[in-house]
This record gives sequence, structure tokens and C-alpha cells, in this order.
Amino acid sequence: MFTKTPPKGMRDILPQDLSVREQVLDVIKTTYRGFGFLGIETPCVEDLGLLTGKQGGDNEKLIFKILKRGEKLDLNTQSEEGQLCDLGLRYDLTVPLSRYYACNQGKLPSVFKAMQIGNVWRAERPQKGRFRQFVQCDIDIIGEESYLAEVELITATSKALSNLGLKDFVIRINDRRMLTSFAEYCGFESARHEALFIALDKLDKIGMDGVREELSQHGFDADKTEKFLNLINDLTNGEDALQRAAKVNAEAAENLQRIKAVTSVSAHDCRIVFDPTLVRGMNYYTGTIFEVSYGDFGISVAGGGRYDKMLGMFLGTSVPACGFSIGFERICTILEQMNKDEKPTQNKIAYIVDKDISVENLQKVLADSEEKRQQGNVCMLAKKIKNFGFLLKQLREQGFETILMLDNDGIRKVD
Amino acid sequence: MFTKTPPKGMRDILPQDLSVREQVLDVIKTTYRGFGFLGIETPCVEDLGLLTGKQGGDNEKLIFKILKRGEKLDLNTQSEEGQLCDLGLRYDLTVPLSRYYACNQGKLPSVFKAMQIGNVWRAERPQKGRFRQFVQCDIDIIGEESYLAEVELITATSKALSNLGLKDFVIRINDRRMLTSFAEYCGFESARHEALFIALDKLDKIGMDGVREELSQHGFDADKTEKFLNLINDLTNGEDALQRAAKVNAEAAENLQRIKAVTSVSAHDCRIVFDPTLVRGMNYYTGTIFEVSYGDFGISVAGGGRYDKMLGMFLGTSVPACGFSIGFERICTILEQMNKDEKPTQNKIAYIVDKDISVENLQKVLADSEEKRQQGNVCMLAKKIKNFGFLLKQLREQGFETILMLDNDGIRKVD
Repeated sequence: MFTKTPPKGMRDILPQDLSVREQVLDVIKTTYRGFGFLGIETPCVEDLGLLTGKQGGDNEKLIFKILKRGEKLDLNTQSEEGQLCDLGLRYDLTVPLSRYYACNQGKLPSVFKAMQIGNVWRAERPQKGRFRQFVQCDIDIIGEESYLAEVELITATSKALSNLGLKDFVIRINDRRMLTSFAEYCGFESARHEALFIALDKLDKIGMDGVREELSQHGFDADKTEKFLNLINDLTNGEDALQRAAKVNAEAAENLQRIKAVTSVSAHDCRIVFDPTLVRGMNYYTGTIFEVSYGDFGISVAGGGRYDKMLGMFLGTSVPACGFSIGFERICTILEQMNKDEKPTQNKIAYIVDKDISVENLQKVLADSEEKRQQGNVCMLAKKIKNFGFLLKQLREQGFETILMLDNDGIRKVD
Repeated sequence: MFTKTPPKGMRDILPQDLSVREQVLDVIKTTYRGFGFLGIETPCVEDLGLLTGKQGGDNEKLIFKILKRGEKLDLNTQSEEGQLCDLGLRYDLTVPLSRYYACNQGKLPSVFKAMQIGNVWRAERPQKGRFRQFVQCDIDIIGEESYLAEVELITATSKALSNLGLKDFVIRINDRRMLTSFAEYCGFESARHEALFIALDKLDKIGMDGVREELSQHGFDADKTEKFLNLINDLTNGEDALQRAAKVNAEAAENLQRIKAVTSVSAHDCRIVFDPTLVRGMNYYTGTIFEVSYGDFGISVAGGGRYDKMLGMFLGTSVPACGFSIGFERICTILEQMNKDEKPTQNKIAYIVDKDISVENLQKVLADSEEKRQQGNVCMLAKKIKNFGFLLKQLREQGFETILMLDNDGIRKVD
């Protein structure tokens, strides 16, 4: 006998859950289309060399690798993962989008506003609420180097979240160049910046003392660390933090200031705040970064940023790019809890038929159901079984409020 | 530099093509929902043991296999594909649906009408119009042993195809039990039936002489072969073919007769015909089988049948099941050719802005665009570039018929 359960860390989606997911996707797509974003699709599978190109940070360790096939596979001579496998399941949508743009550039507008929605896979250790296959919803603007890209991405994403019924979320923004300037200002050499940012990224979990401790363990100079933490602390507070940050990196601060000023008006149901502690994990970010936090626990429900160097790895010449990704699975979890008791809008009608119903009568029932379907109802057949009460109970549980039967007097309602 | 092209046999989908695909999916989903089918989703990845369980016929040779991860992988001791891999990409939606039903039976109606739409993968030799990742759209009725299942599947699928704009298609029906009875009637032993049906399946490509030749090469008895081909030939013609077929298998013939009689009225824009040469490749079919042919060349655009034994392999007890699958990729190809010159229905508005536009003016533009978006328009920003004529040309090519600019007099139209 075969196993009944889905593979470890993956899941089956039940009809009522899929219905919520499709409604969420529909709102997101409709909103983004309204802003002129064009839907695209890339294969779920990409060349392994592309996926392991050091763009995805830690996610590259989590790739599902696909065995070579046919003549390309020689189990006698090939014995390393890189030799045995040639493809992998994508771990995000940004790397595939970059390849897509490079491949299809001639057929796309020179400033390309893309929307991509699809599954991604990561072989993470399974834990509650995290899955090894999950959906991402990304919008990206390729070919726009100015802050107009950030403004449109933030405005559209806040509108999508607002249309989904989320209120009072916070969009935190920062700039990777700002982080680098902080590090330089405090005297850290560039080889140590990544480790510094990884520690800073944990601030909300381990606090200032935890970050200080981690940096000390990694051998960071205590005086410089103190200077860095004081700077971060100072810039975390006050409406004029960006003016003060301008002393460290005027260009990045001014850019953030403009984005903040415009989106404070254009973005919906949210606050925009400068957060000097925001890091974002991916190695590919080069400028503005942003993240949306929702609710009392500040759950991250969306994030993104500018990645001006990635396209250059495909094209030779650099092309600016900036993207925003909605954490679809978290949104669905939040909305499931918000809308638990929502009723379906379509009327559902079941026609109970005897298994020995005559051909003519079955034709009559089907004609009647097609007429009612044209009027916007859901109509289906249900075969009469011995336990009639159980059948009615099951149909009512499925939302069939109108139940019909054919007898000598024609089609009549069952009470 | 990274490679720009998608993996061999896979493809990137351009915005205009995705738009057609999403419209097709929308029509199919809306139609099937109207018949009470409930959407479900299973992971793209399944246990390799499940996928190689001899249900999928030749498709099992085409599975993309996924390398084990972490401690489960030991390249020193494991050297066969079955040891190295534990998962695979699904090659159809029927095997996963069966596992899904077995796993979630307690949460589903006792007669379960499922709709599943998703990608499947087959490592076929790439050829024109065939891809290694492609979409299938399936509906299935689980738990209904009577012909009511076939009637509802055929009625709903013909309605979906009709709603998509396809007319004059033919639904051919047959029964696996009928094929078996043909073979027994002609004296072939059961071990040879599969080879016999494989040859018969090629009739439309190689003709009667070709089938005779192939059977002769496989050592089939010439007299029996002649009897078989005469029987098939006889039953291919005439309105009363099913009455004559009843002499070989009365139960199957009567069942087909009833399905044909009901769906001749309930199914839309199509003809229903009995086709004694219809075989269908999958090993899992046990009863009725059907296939939809479209156009002068009789391209197959949908197919399915009854598979009453598959659920038993998960549950121990047998549960009847019957399904119909629309060949989504072929439908898209047909519709792309039919609707080449269709116009988008939404009005598209572009706001050209200078990169040095003031914060206040940008806020004004965004407010105006949000207002127009609320009225159902697509609105986006486009940054002014030196070559203004090129910008206008690109925007018009993208379908932006209304182009606006902000100057001292406010927002005005560009001619």
C-alpha cells in the first residue's frame, strides 16, 4: 500500500482553504494590474548553476536538486551532487525574473513592470506555519534607476494589502548603502560588514545587548562596536532621524526622505518609517530595502528592495531593478483568522436523483440545472442513497441550501 | 555570466500569453465551480515510490527525480537512482488526487467532486508544441459508481469548452471492459491484451493495414487478428453500433448507450459518438473512457475515464472514481490563433513625470491616478526620457491610449 501523506514539510490544500487563497490572489492580481504591472511566468525548475550563483544567501543551501536524466547521468563516474544534478527547484522568484528579463528583453517594454506569482521550494527544517513549498507574489520594476520605482512599488503593495482588508501596518525603509556608510563611519573594514549586518539583523530578537555580545564573540573591536550601536540607537528615534543620517550618507538619506514624503500620502492604511536596523537577508540588494510589519507582534508580511547589480550578471551591462514581495502564506493565515465566518455568495442547489432515473427524466433535471446555473447558481447532481437523512445533512454541510427532487409532479423542493 | 535561457524543453511565458492563459483558466474554473466542483491543491512534489507505482504507464519513465538531502544522502554507499532520490515531480494530477483523497477523506464529502489545476512535469524529448512543464485541468468525481459521474463530467467539460468558444467538437466514448471483451471474443489470452490495445491505439495514425502489420510482427495469430479487425471495423460504423456491441459486452454497451443518450442533450456544442478504437494510454482505467477531438485534424483537447481500482491501493477498500482532464496547452494554442486581434477591455492611462518632479507634484499625480484606478482604469507612471517620441511609441505599443502630463496648468493630455 502507498503512503497517504504528502512529502515531509509539504501539504494538501482543502477546498475551503483554496477558496480563501484564490480570493487573496485575485485581490492582489487585480490591484497590481491596476498599476500597470504585467503578469509573467517562469518555469519552476532552473539550471542548478543559476540557483547556486551566490545570490540567494543561505537559501542556496536549501535547494531541491534534480537528478540528471538519460545519457547525461553516469552513476559510475559521477559522484558529487554538482555532477549528479543539473536542475533545481527555484527558491525565490527574483533570480528567475532576472534570467527572464535577460532572455526576453527585446520583447519587453524598456521600463518593465512585472508581476510574478508562483510556488517556490526550500528544504527547510519543517516547523509550524512554515512549508517547503509556498507561494510568493512579487512585483518588480526593471529599468528604472530613480526613486519613482520605489514609490510605485510601495504605493501598489500598500494598496494591495489594504484591499485585502489589512489596516494599520507599518512599512519600514532603509538603504543598504546607508548600512555600509554606518559601518565605514565606525571604522569597520568592508570584509567584516556582512557579519556586522547579520548580527544587527537579529536586533529585534536578541536586543542591543545580544548584538553587542555576538559582535564581541566574532572579535569585533569593542570601541567601534559601541560607536556603531550608539549611532543605530540615535537614528532609531525621532522624526528628524533621516536628517541626522544625512551626515553619514547624504545621498541615501535624501532618497529615503523623498520616498517617505511621497508615500506618506500615496500609500494606504499604513505608516512609513525609517528603520536604520533593517537589513534584509539576500546578498543581492544594493540600495533601498523595505519590509512591511503587521499587528502587535510586528509579523513581516512583505519585503523587498533594490538590486541594481543582478541583471548585469546576465547582460554584461548593468540594469537597475527594484522589487517588492508579498508573503502570501502569512497573509492567508492572518485573513483566515479574520474572516472565519464568511458565507459564500453563490446560491448552491443540489438535485437528488435516483440511480435508476430514466434517461428522459435525467435530461429534464440537467436542463433545469443548466437554466439555474445560467442565473448564477451552483448546481449539481446528488444520487439518492438509503440513508436519506445523512445525504441531506452532508449536502447542507457543503452549503447546498436548496435541495430539489424530481417526482411525478415535476421538480419540487425537499424541506 | 549566467545562461539566459530556461532549462531545455521549458519556457518563459510573456505577458500577453499569460493574459490569454489566465482568461482560459478563469472560464474553466468558473464553469466547473457552477457544477459544484471544489478546487483542491496538492504539492508539485510527491514521494518517488508513489510516482513509480506502475499506474502512469510510460509516463513513469519521464519523472524528474529529486536528490535526497542532508543525512539521508550518502554518496559513498548509495549508487542507484532509487537510493539517491526520495521525491519526484508529479507527471499527472490523477495519482496525487488519489493520494489526497485517501489522506483527507474524513474532511471531504462522501461523493467528492474535485477540480485540480496545476503544472505537471515530464522529461520528454523536446518537440514543437510539447513542453516538459505544462498545465493540466482536471475534474474528478470520487465515490460515485453509477453513470451519473460520467454524465456530469461530460456535461461540465463540454460546457467549459463551449464557454471558451470552441464549437463542433466530438466526444468519443468507449469502455475498457468492452475492449477486453473484444479481445476475449476473438480468442486472445489476457497476457496479450495490453499489446493488442497499444497497436489498436495507433489506428488513426497507421490505419488498419498498419495495425495488422504490427500485430503480425508481435506474433499475434493471423486469423484471430482478422476477426478482431473485422469486429472493430463493423462497430465503427452505424448509429446502431452500440446495439451490436451489446452482443460482446451487454453491460458496458448499455452503460455507454445511457451516457450517450443523456449527454446528447445535456452536452453543449458537440457530438457524442461511440468509438470502439479508443484506448487511452494510462494503465489505471477500468471502465468508461472518453476523449474530445477538435477541428479538421481531430486534435485531442481533453480526455479521461473511470479508474475504480486506484483508490484501493491507498485505502485497502475500493472506491469508484472517474475523471476528465482538459489539455490546457492545446486549448491555449487554438484560442491564440482564434482571437489574435482581440483588444483589452480596460482603459490604460500613463502619467509621464519628470525625474526631478517635486514631492508635492508627484503626490498630486499619484492621487489623480488612484482616482482613475478606482474608476476601473489601469494607471501607471512613466518617467520622461530625452527621446520623448520613443517613449510615446513604447507606451502606445503597450496599449496606453491615454497619456497625461503635469504642467503649470495641471494634468493635461499629450496628443
